[in-house]
Formats: sequence, C-alpha cells, structure tokens
Amino acid sequence: MTDATPPKVTLVDIARLAGVGVGTASRALSNAKNVAPATRERVLRVAEEHHYVVSPEASRLAKGNTGRVALVVPHLSRWFFGAVVEGLGSVLRGAELDVLLYQVGDVADRQDFFDRLPARRKVDAVVVIGFQVEEAERTRLETMGVHIVAAGGQWASYPSVHIDDHEASRQAVDHLLHLGHTRIGMLEALDPDQPRLRSTRSPAYYEALERAGIPVDPSIVVTAPWGGEHGAASMSRLLGHPDPPTAVFAHSDEVALGAMRTLRRAGLRPGTDLSVVGIDDHPLAELCDLTTVRQQPGEQGAIAGRLLLDLLAGGAAPHRSTTVPTELVVRGSTAPPRPTGRP
Amino acid sequence: MTDATPPKVTLVDIARLAGVGVGTASRALSNAKNVAPATRERVLRVAEEHHYVVSPEASRLAKGNTGRVALVVPHLSRWFFGAVVEGLGSVLRGAELDVLLYQVGDVADRQDFFDRLPARRKVDAVVVIGFQVEEAERTRLETMGVHIVAAGGQWASYPSVHIDDHEASRQAVDHLLHLGHTRIGMLEALDPDQPRLRSTRSPAYYEALERAGIPVDPSIVVTAPWGGEHGAASMSRLLGHPDPPTAVFAHSDEVALGAMRTLRRAGLRPGTDLSVVGIDDHPLAELCDLTTVRQQPGEQGAIAGRLLLDLLAGGAAPHRSTTVPTELVVRGSTAPPRPTGRP
Repeated sequence: MTDATPPKVTLVDIARLAGVGVGTASRALSNAKNVAPATRERVLRVAEEHHYVVSPEASRLAKGNTGRVALVVPHLSRWFFGAVVEGLGSVLRGAELDVLLYQVGDVADRQDFFDRLPARRKVDAVVVIGFQVEEAERTRLETMGVHIVAAGGQWASYPSVHIDDHEASRQAVDHLLHLGHTRIGMLEALDPDQPRLRSTRSPAYYEALERAGIPVDPSIVVTAPWGGEHGAASMSRLLGHPDPPTAVFAHSDEVALGAMRTLRRAGLRPGTDLSVVGIDDHPLAELCDLTTVRQQPGEQGAIAGRLLLDLLAGGAAPHRSTTVPTELVVRGSTAPPRPTGRP
Repeated sequence: MTDATPPKVTLVDIARLAGVGVGTASRALSNAKNVAPATRERVLRVAEEHHYVVSPEASRLAKGNTGRVALVVPHLSRWFFGAVVEGLGSVLRGAELDVLLYQVGDVADRQDFFDRLPARRKVDAVVVIGFQVEEAERTRLETMGVHIVAAGGQWASYPSVHIDDHEASRQAVDHLLHLGHTRIGMLEALDPDQPRLRSTRSPAYYEALERAGIPVDPSIVVTAPWGGEHGAASMSRLLGHPDPPTAVFAHSDEVALGAMRTLRRAGLRPGTDLSVVGIDDHPLAELCDLTTVRQQPGEQGAIAGRLLLDLLAGGAAPHRSTTVPTELVVRGSTAPPRPTGRP
C-alpha cells in the first residue's frame, strides 16, 4: 500500500469487526427492520469508528427519501440562530418535511455529529447554521447523497445564504465617518472556539479609515469573544485610554449593548457623548435605541429553506450562493461628535 | 345511535374512504415500506380528517421505538423558548434520542399539529414548550402511547416543569414595596392568541398591595400583548397619567426594557427617577441594568428532558410536576422613591 489514500473499509470489514454476517451488516446499515437493536447499534458503531461510507449506489437503493432534514446549530438561546431556524422551519414545514434539530455547541460536538450522521443517514439534507463545514465532512455527506446548505454563515463552497460581512461593516463605519467622527474605535469579536478564523467584519474598518485618510490607531481596537459582557469590558478599556475614541464600531449588537452599559455607568450618554453602532438589528436594539446594520436572519433562513427544496427537487445549481442585503438603521446611539471632540 | 359518543371510525372505514384495501390501509398507517407514497399520503389524510386512532395494541405491535421526540414550540427567535429547547436538547441528545422540531406559531398551527401527529406516530413523546395542551389532544396522544411533557409553561394535568408565576410576581412587587414605593403600576402582558387565558402573574400584584394596605388603582394597570414595543407604549400612557406611579412591575423583561426606553426618551433615569422590575433575567437584562426575577429556562428544559427520559423508561409517576425556583436579581433599574414621591 504505497498510495497516500488510506485503505478503504469495505462492508466485509465492517461485518467482520462487528462479528456479524455481511447480510446482517448490510441490513443494519440500511436501517431494515429485521435486525436486533443491539446488533444494529454494534454495526453502526463499528461503521462510525472506521468512517465507513456506504457506496452511493447501495445507499440510493436503500434509502428512499427520509422526508427529514437536519438543522445543525451551535446555539439556540441566541436570537440570531433561533431566528434562522424559525425562517427555515416555516419553509420546510410548508413542504411537509420533518426537521431534526441537532445542537452542536463546540467544535468537538460538530466533529462528533459529522462522524455519526453519514453512517446512519437519517436525513435527506443537512443545513448548517452560522458555522463552516470542513471540506472532508462535506465530501462524506455528498457521497451519501445528503445535500448540504449553509445559512447565516460565511461564504462556502456549497450552497449558502449569508450577508456580505464586508459591506455591512462598511455601512457601519461609513455612517460614523459621515457624522464627522475621525477617532473611531473598533470592538472586534472573535469565536473563541475557532481562533484561526479571522473576523470578516474587520477589514472594512481599516479600508474605510484609509479611504478617509485617517491613520489607523491599533490601540483603540479591542479584540474579545462575542457577547455583551465582553463588549462592556472592551468599552471600559477604551474609556481608560488617554485619548479615547468619539465613536466605536461594534461587531454585533450584543457587543454594542454591553458597550452602552459601560457608557451609562460612566455617566456618559450614548450618542450625545460617544457614538456606538452595531450589526444585527437584534429585537432589543430598537428598545435600546441602538443604531445598527440590519441583517435579517429569518429571511436568511427562509431563503436557505427554499434553496434546499430546489436541491431536493433536483433543480438548483450545486454551488448557488445568495447574499441577503443589509441596511443601516439610524437610532439614538449615534450622533455627530461633540465640539470638543472628547467625551 | 343514541349514545353521546361519536361513532368510532374503524380501519375498515378508513380503507373504504381512501379507496384501498384494509391491508394497504394498515400498512400505510404503520409506516411499512411497501406502500406507494401517494397511497400512503391519501390514507393518512383520511385518517387525520376522521381523527382515526389506531388501537393501542395494534400501535404497540407496529411501532417499536422511533427513538425520536417532538419538541413543539410557538417561537424560536425569542430567548425564552430557544433556551428551553437548548436545555431539553442537551439532555435528549445525551440519551441518543433524535429531536424533531415543530414550530407552531398560533393556535390554528397547534391544532393542525395535534390533528396530524397521532396518525403518523413519528415520535415516542411530545414536549410542549410554553403553552397548554387541550385535554382532548392529550388523550389522543396517550391513547397512541405517546408521552407528553410540558416545559416552561403553566401547571398542567400531565407531567410539567415550570416556575411558580405567583411567587415570581410576589418577589417582584415585594421588592418595590420594600424599597418604600406606595404608588406601583403594573404592565400586564397577555397572549393575544389566547385572550381567554388570564395572566397568572397579576393576582400576586393585587394581593401584595392589599397585604401592604395600599389601595389598588386600576388606572395605573395597563394591559397589552407581550413584547417590548407594547411595554414602551404602556409606559407612555402611565407617564401621561395625572398622578403617575413611582415604580412599575412589568410581566416580562422585554416589556420592562420597552418601558425603560420610554423613560430615557422622556429624560428620566430608570431607578433614580422611576423604578422598573421585570421577570425573566433575559441575557440582555444584565446589559441594560434591569432588576428582574430570574427564571432559568435552560434549567427548566433540562429538567423536562430528564422527566421525559424517566417516562420513556417506564419510571416516573404520570402526573409529576416540578417547580423551578425563581430569585430576585437587583440591578440599577430599581431604587427607593425620590423624596418628592414624583418622577
């Protein structure tokens, strides 16, 4: 075996390793009824451990349509993810498809999910919400004839629905520039789980400043994980700066709302004393008078649902990608800088 | 037929109405593979229309375990519901159960869901999140051997997990009384979809005032649907009152956050000028310095998940109910009344 490709595991191997006949192994993998549950479990476990992939032809013969779609989502108690699921669910439900929900909180969870799913083939399609799928995982799903669609994430090599993060960030920073701010900080959010992924919301900040002829000051860019408490702490750091910014661009509304709490606690009025802009249009942004760039996760979910229905019907191009436009929503948290230029 | 019981629809009736043989009807209803999809659909539709219920024995023979649980939830983009689903999902996933998600936005949706589910019997159990199930629906599910559990709602005749709404409201109102407020308004929230259901959060308000010897003034109680915008509008009405309250008890954090926006827009500081307390401890309550009564929806979901596992294992008492304690969380939006007693 000099080839770099690992040796291919066959059905015969799986049967041997599970201590059953080839017929039983095949029936277990195709989910036939006449297999004892314990036996079926053992065969599936062995198949998973050895990354066994049923041949597409065999799979197609065995599978029929399950009538089910898996939604894979890292969080559900956060508005963005819930709203995408809501939009997706309404479309899939209209098509009489059942929705299997898989919450995979961290990278290890996701790995586990993608290790297990293909051998069991419980669904016709997988929608990943707000995260990227590795190319190897995608290949395994496609080999099994399981469609994959991404919703509410970044651009992907498979069909996906997303906003243009660069454009959304440009809208936010240009708004601050148009108001006359020249000292603009950034509250940069990163996924602590995937520190390798650079933020797609940062480059537009640097480009907009450069375009406006404003030198970048890295000391007023604070990087922290997503979340309101981190936004509050980052804003505290900026307020302690010897020359604090007159405006900040926050990577999300929750980060921005945290920053606004710090301002109020410091006796400063958001907008009047220091401008804050976010990205999202979280339902509570309106209640907090936060200027933001609206993305519509429910709409992103609904479009992903329709894309998926096209794929299941054999219609859509395999690499179709849809960008949902974003728009600036001006509220009370942004205003021209105070004449002194200092909060 | 002089009996009040409607005539019972039999398998023979279903077969006749669907224009198929009895064997085919039976196979279609038991989800066997050798039935053409269109035929199966027709049989299921007829069975649904006539509220046909498979006999429990026949069902038990046909069903095995599906290994699936249905979560039925009215909203997903709202934090409370997402957090309950998250807590439930983590427990069910640990038990290797698949979660089918059904979002049923309004009462008609729910009716449709409960009309369709039993005939198809895709799941071993149903968890309803944040709403009540009619007794007739519950009976149909139980006849099919499908367990039912309620999470994050009110007390139910079936196993349920919830907070004590009366106690939570008492904690909120007593906090305002202890601070010295004697003119306390209420922002009462109602489900516009189920106006018959009286709020379980209102009686404690009246009782606490009575206990403190404070006469109730109905003109400072404003009733509106759930939601921040309604809270904002209700607060505006109270600010226009000739003798406005010095504190308000809002039925939820979103309602309270809306009220706080109205205060800020009117140039008033929450806490200092007028106290506001909510119920929830929404993640953004902390970012908005809102005093609230914490309920833990993730914990409610997890307990409901464990209760369900007990039921599936044949263990738990059929009417077990669990109350998750609530606690007051004091932040900046409440303070003693200003010496003048007027905002």
